[in-house]
Amino acid sequence: MQPLMKIKYESAIHTLMITSSHNPRLKLVRALAGRPKERRETGAFLAEGVRLVEEAFSAGWPFEFVLFSNEISNRGRALVEALMQTGLDVEEVAPEILRSASETETTQGILAVLKLASLPLPEKPNFVLIPDQVRDPGNLGTLIRTAAAAGVQAVLVPPETTDPFAPKVIRAGMGAHFGLPVTSLGWETIRKHLNGLTIYLAESGGRKPLWEAEFKHPIALIVGGEAEGASDAARSLADVFINIPMPGKIESLNAAIAGALLMFEAVRQRQEAG
Amino acid sequence: MQPLMKIKYESAIHTLMITSSHNPRLKLVRALAGRPKERRETGAFLAEGVRLVEEAFSAGWPFEFVLFSNEISNRGRALVEALMQTGLDVEEVAPEILRSASETETTQGILAVLKLASLPLPEKPNFVLIPDQVRDPGNLGTLIRTAAAAGVQAVLVPPETTDPFAPKVIRAGMGAHFGLPVTSLGWETIRKHLNGLTIYLAESGGRKPLWEAEFKHPIALIVGGEAEGASDAARSLADVFINIPMPGKIESLNAAIAGALLMFEAVRQRQEAG
Repeated sequence: MQPLMKIKYESAIHTLMITSSHNPRLKLVRALAGRPKERRETGAFLAEGVRLVEEAFSAGWPFEFVLFSNEISNRGRALVEALMQTGLDVEEVAPEILRSASETETTQGILAVLKLASLPLPEKPNFVLIPDQVRDPGNLGTLIRTAAAAGVQAVLVPPETTDPFAPKVIRAGMGAHFGLPVTSLGWETIRKHLNGLTIYLAESGGRKPLWEAEFKHPIALIVGGEAEGASDAARSLADVFINIPMPGKIESLNAAIAGALLMFEAVRQRQEAG
Repeated sequence: MQPLMKIKYESAIHTLMITSSHNPRLKLVRALAGRPKERRETGAFLAEGVRLVEEAFSAGWPFEFVLFSNEISNRGRALVEALMQTGLDVEEVAPEILRSASETETTQGILAVLKLASLPLPEKPNFVLIPDQVRDPGNLGTLIRTAAAAGVQAVLVPPETTDPFAPKVIRAGMGAHFGLPVTSLGWETIRKHLNGLTIYLAESGGRKPLWEAEFKHPIALIVGGEAEGASDAARSLADVFINIPMPGKIESLNAAIAGALLMFEAVRQRQEAG
């Protein structure tokens, strides 16, 4: 809230506003909202809304640039000032232009283009999640968010799963991407990272209930997608097949729910052991 | 697959097809896709897609009528034949008309208008879920689906929670509504139904971890919404405040995930006890 910065901020509003949807930055934003290929080739992804941009900023994630409009909240305006103060590239956009470029229904008047990076994988992890053939972006984001809450140390994403840096996954992840290594890898590379871990796969035919699994030791948990379950590649990697007992009439769970039950069973066993 | 029915079916296609969006049934469908008031006043709700209509049918749920178009799959076509054979009111609609009336992005060419009813509440339940201030329809539907898998006997929905018979809730419920009593009630009525149950409420300030709660006895579990948590009414009803330990960096869970962890902790304790 230094007067100098205030002036800089006001002048930014009046001199730099983007008013054309043909502006190259807006074209880039629209491309990044689309296919994984666009994100890979540009090496960037989108974070939309005040809370996600705040989370990326406070985690020290590398930014390309930030766009905002006058539809932003007071909290968002304070964030914009803070971003400018650290010298980040922040530009104002006409509200209707920002709205049309955005993925979300309520843009909240701010989005960031962030560098597509991954936090370093731990050398000897003892808690890894592998979401396999999870196609629904909301489910994948929720799995990543839940993994961050459960203390998972790495999320390894096989090729058949949806892109973990798609806008809907980022949104459902609620900032979890900025504190937890999340990496798309081929199965061969995944296999190498799992050295020394016991690999559990949950499916309805699994031999023992998850509560009897030994989750105190270093583990990787494979969660299959809703439609097809786990892939053959995942099955060939698994050491132990477990199930989630369902005493009710329905015998299926959302993939994010199934994953959460596995991860928090590990939390329970480890807290009881400690 | 009797030839007679086949003929009846073919003739239905050619003589009864609705081709106008002003048709009263299509107007009703659009109204039912909207506000809870419309569903309450008409005493009906929508189930869209082959799987949901199948589930309602096999559960013996009371139907008003069914609309389908020629965009239906073979599996859907077999369902339409079966519905007709039992004498249900089934009409064909021009595909573009059905698509425009439908809530879902992929209509699958079939929807049913069902009677808004509730399965009878058990006299002395021992496992009840109360989703409180849950606004997101996807989360509420997932909670209901998970409750059905966990063997919950009734879902009591307080006034501040989104309508459990909204199309998006039905869709995320995946048929759970047809096998589990789900009822919207005022808090006073909810209180009466909880006589003899220990009422648990999970929140971050809860005194003990859910694993130390006593879930073997008859219980009601209150799950608060993401934005505001549980209401004052819910808090005044609760006997025991518990928490979900989160060893990771993020300290929040999606409401559906939090609810699932509570319900399946009860499943675990009861199976171990049994």
